[in-house]
Amino acid sequence: MIRILFSGGPEDRWATYSDVLPQALEAAGIEAEIRQDWPPEQVDYIVYAPNEDLTDFSPYVNCKAVLNLWAGVEGLTKNDTLTQPLTRMVDRGLTEGMVEWVTGHVLRHHLGMDAHIVNPDHEWNWAPPPLARKRPVTMLGLGELGEACARSLAALNFPVTGWSRSLKDIDGITCVAGDDGLAGALAAAEIVVLLLPLTPETRNLMDAERLAGMKRGAVLINPGRGPLIDDDALLAALDDGQIAHATLDVFREEPLPRDHPYWAHPRVTVTPHIASATRPDTAAEVIAENIRRAEAGEPLLYRVDRDAGY
Amino acid sequence: MIRILFSGGPEDRWATYSDVLPQALEAAGIEAEIRQDWPPEQVDYIVYAPNEDLTDFSPYVNCKAVLNLWAGVEGLTKNDTLTQPLTRMVDRGLTEGMVEWVTGHVLRHHLGMDAHIVNPDHEWNWAPPPLARKRPVTMLGLGELGEACARSLAALNFPVTGWSRSLKDIDGITCVAGDDGLAGALAAAEIVVLLLPLTPETRNLMDAERLAGMKRGAVLINPGRGPLIDDDALLAALDDGQIAHATLDVFREEPLPRDHPYWAHPRVTVTPHIASATRPDTAAEVIAENIRRAEAGEPLLYRVDRDAGY
Repeated sequence: MIRILFSGGPEDRWATYSDVLPQALEAAGIEAEIRQDWPPEQVDYIVYAPNEDLTDFSPYVNCKAVLNLWAGVEGLTKNDTLTQPLTRMVDRGLTEGMVEWVTGHVLRHHLGMDAHIVNPDHEWNWAPPPLARKRPVTMLGLGELGEACARSLAALNFPVTGWSRSLKDIDGITCVAGDDGLAGALAAAEIVVLLLPLTPETRNLMDAERLAGMKRGAVLINPGRGPLIDDDALLAALDDGQIAHATLDVFREEPLPRDHPYWAHPRVTVTPHIASATRPDTAAEVIAENIRRAEAGEPLLYRVDRDAGY
Repeated sequence: MIRILFSGGPEDRWATYSDVLPQALEAAGIEAEIRQDWPPEQVDYIVYAPNEDLTDFSPYVNCKAVLNLWAGVEGLTKNDTLTQPLTRMVDRGLTEGMVEWVTGHVLRHHLGMDAHIVNPDHEWNWAPPPLARKRPVTMLGLGELGEACARSLAALNFPVTGWSRSLKDIDGITCVAGDDGLAGALAAAEIVVLLLPLTPETRNLMDAERLAGMKRGAVLINPGRGPLIDDDALLAALDDGQIAHATLDVFREEPLPRDHPYWAHPRVTVTPHIASATRPDTAAEVIAENIRRAEAGEPLLYRVDRDAGY
């Protein structure tokens, strides 16, 4: 009998997992008991969403892995009490949802939809957009999500450049890395999408200098992490017209405060952190598969490299 | 020396083809002279866009084919003087542009983008959309354009049902035909896309009865032909909430008159016939290839079946 601690915080996340997680474990052939309050030394696995009730992992001396329900782990990699193997969530549903959101908003800007959705003067301006094959897009970050989005855009014929810390090799994507690669990738694109993890190196990556290095009139789309962008620098670049539009799904403070200038800015679209929602049914399958792997002595899926920070 | 008549009407369409068409012919190994005013009996081929200067094709007794620059041929199939072989334009660029427009607007409605693009009260409503795999889409029409759009949507995991006059077999698409097939395809979908040719059978296809047969709150997207829809019936269905939104790119009269109720209707988005713009460079390649085929005695691409009307 495997003992699983479900530590999902105050939002009663358990309610969304109490059916699907036992089902997924049973389907994986695992006999387990899931509780929200085991004595720490009895716990075999922790299924975790960041919460203030559990921030000290040191009493969980027999815990074989901490299985995060979220893709982002920046709060956990800095926690020195967490010495157990740690996995990120890479949920098939989360990836699909992100691909849909990114593909949709890139097409929205590519097609110039906003001018049709809001057209108070009823103007019939016949001006077909160029084909996607003439619209270069840059993806910053080529992890699970970034790569999936890059492939989706390339399938629609967008010329896609992908930038990552270590150089990748992805069919149909122009892959670059390093500082020079970043400058070139920013300068070439008409639409830039941020799907980087938040690390000390990526915090405020899009600062005044890098925004100035983008093609004038380009669009910035951020479904990654709020602090990837220097907000004051972005607002200045939007006011100046250097950036034509920003579509932002993530923010330093969420919900975005009502008095934040992003809300009222005519060149900003706010979406309420919906690009990457973990789906309990598919996420439960990943948790069950990782417990199966740990019990069988197989390598865990999506294990976090604590030094890299993701 | 092959003599080609370019009859493109009063909009000086020749200006956009005068470079690319000779280049495409040369690349296809065809020696030709293109003019806008040959004596009719000397003309070998007519490159045509509907225009009032040429509506009687009977003097062109030696003409081997009429090569239309547009996808729609409903004006030509009723012209009894046109006895020469007739081809529609199936432009790679036109198909790509249509796929981009249809995929973009389906994703727009799927993701509920409009509520974020226009959000005057700055509401942070966290409500992730379902995954595309839970959002059934129906494509009416599975010609070159409809099939390409259906495949693009299926690649994003939308469950796609395709309806056509004669039953098709397309991998990944649930294909149906006939009256029963139509009723089921309309009832099941949350988003319906019209990409049918305009024929006596499809005119006013979306009438009050068929609109009532759609799922309540569904979205209708029409990049096909304006008269596929009974406009009064659609306006009534929108007022009633039976149809949640209509995104329309084509109309009975274009530009859409300023006093047309579609412009001001809060549940209608008008786009100015931009979904399917022929691109001269890729269209010229199709014209050249068909002249090469005709001269070599090979079957023409995209030849129109005059009885079917497309």
